[in-house]
Amino acid sequence: LNRIKASGLKLQFCTNETQATREKFVKKLQGMGFDISVAEVTAPAPAACRILKERSLRPHLLVHNDLVPEFAEIDKANPNCVVIGDAAENFTYANLNEAFRVLIGLEKPVLISLGRGRYYKETDGLKLDVGAYMKALEYACDVQAEVVGKPAKMFFESALAEMGVPPQQAIMIGDDIVNDVGGAQQCGMRALQVRTGKYRPCDENHPHVKPDAYVNNLAEAVDIILQQL
Amino acid sequence: LNRIKASGLKLQFCTNETQATREKFVKKLQGMGFDISVAEVTAPAPAACRILKERSLRPHLLVHNDLVPEFAEIDKANPNCVVIGDAAENFTYANLNEAFRVLIGLEKPVLISLGRGRYYKETDGLKLDVGAYMKALEYACDVQAEVVGKPAKMFFESALAEMGVPPQQAIMIGDDIVNDVGGAQQCGMRALQVRTGKYRPCDENHPHVKPDAYVNNLAEAVDIILQQL
Repeated sequence: LNRIKASGLKLQFCTNETQATREKFVKKLQGMGFDISVAEVTAPAPAACRILKERSLRPHLLVHNDLVPEFAEIDKANPNCVVIGDAAENFTYANLNEAFRVLIGLEKPVLISLGRGRYYKETDGLKLDVGAYMKALEYACDVQAEVVGKPAKMFFESALAEMGVPPQQAIMIGDDIVNDVGGAQQCGMRALQVRTGKYRPCDENHPHVKPDAYVNNLAEAVDIILQQL
Repeated sequence: LNRIKASGLKLQFCTNETQATREKFVKKLQGMGFDISVAEVTAPAPAACRILKERSLRPHLLVHNDLVPEFAEIDKANPNCVVIGDAAENFTYANLNEAFRVLIGLEKPVLISLGRGRYYKETDGLKLDVGAYMKALEYACDVQAEVVGKPAKMFFESALAEMGVPPQQAIMIGDDIVNDVGGAQQCGMRALQVRTGKYRPCDENHPHVKPDAYVNNLAEAVDIILQQL
C-alpha cells in the first residue's frame, strides 16, 4: 500500500463491512499497521445514505448497532423504506416482524440491502448473512431488494467518483471472484484476483467471471501495476 | 358438518396449522361446538413424520414448542435433515443459525417445510410466516425445500388415503383459492370456494385457479353436495 501511495496513484478501499462504522473499521486496520483513512474507504452504509438522500427515502433500519452512527444525518421519522444490513444479534423475531410490517405497509415497498452474502464464518461457527434475511423479506413482501455494496455496479461507480477516475483507468485488486473481480469488470474496470484470503483454486474455473490476471499476493499485484506506469 | 356426517359421506379436515398438535387443535374446535376427532384431521406435522419414516430421515426441528409432541416417535439423534414450521418466538438468531449449520453440514441438504405461507395476522399485528424463513435457509444453503401441507399434492393424497377415496369421488371445500382450491384440483379433486374467511372478491379473477363452483358459506356447500347424492 505504501508503494502505491508513494507512486502517486489514487487508491480507494472497497469493503462490504456492515458490522461497524468506517471509523471503527479504519482504526482496526491502522492498528494492524496500515496507512488508511476514513475518506479512502467505500462501504455499503455511506453508499446507501447517498441513495436515501437522493430519493428522499427515510429508512427503518435493521442493522448492527455499531453501524447505526453511519445513518446519524439521515431522517428516520415516518419511514418509507427499510435498510437491512448484517444485523447479527439484532436479527430477532420481533425486529424482523417490525421491518416486515413497515415494508408491507408501504404502497410500493422499497428494501435496500447492504450486501447479498449467504453466510460467513466466525470463531463460534457459521452464521447466516444479510442475504438470507433479505430473501425472507423479499418473499414475504413480494419485492426485489436493491443491493448496495460489492458486486453492485453503482458501488464501484461511487468508489471511482470518490477518486475522480474513469473505469478504464482503474484496476481492482481483490480475493473474491464474484464480488470483487466480477463486480469491477461489469463496471468497466480491469480486475486482478489475488490467490490469498477467500481465493479458492476452483475460482479459476468460474463459469462467468475471469480476472484479467492472477497474482499470488498483494505485493505482486503492486509490482505488476508499477511496472506498467 | 353434522348433516354431512349423517349422510354417510366420508369427511376429512385438512389444515396447515403448525403451531399446535392435532390434539390441541381438535380440542379448540370441539370447544366451539364442532363434532371432530384427531383421526379426522390431516395436518402438516404428521404428514412430515410419514416422510421422515419412509426415508429414514432424522430431523433437526425448528418448530413451535407446542408442535414438538407430534414428533415424539421420530428419531432425532445425529440429524440428517431440517424440518421447519411456523416456529414463531423460536425463530431466534441462534436457532436459525443452528438449523443452517445442520443443513450446510450435510452432503446433500434436505429441508422439509411445513407450509410456504408468507405472513399472517395476529391480534398484535402481522407476522412473518414459515415461508419467509424457509426462503432464508434455501438461499443460504442453495437448496430447494420440500413443502408439506396445502397446496402440496402429496398432502391431499394422504387425506384421500386416510378416507380410502379416489380423488374423482372427493370434493374440497375451502376459503383459500391457492392452498385449498388449487391444491385439491391439482390432485384431481373438485373444489368449492366458500365466500367466507380468507375469501376476497379478487380471488374470482385469479390468473391460474378457478374453483368448480362458489358458495356463500359452508351450509350452502353442504346443500349442493347432498342434492347431488
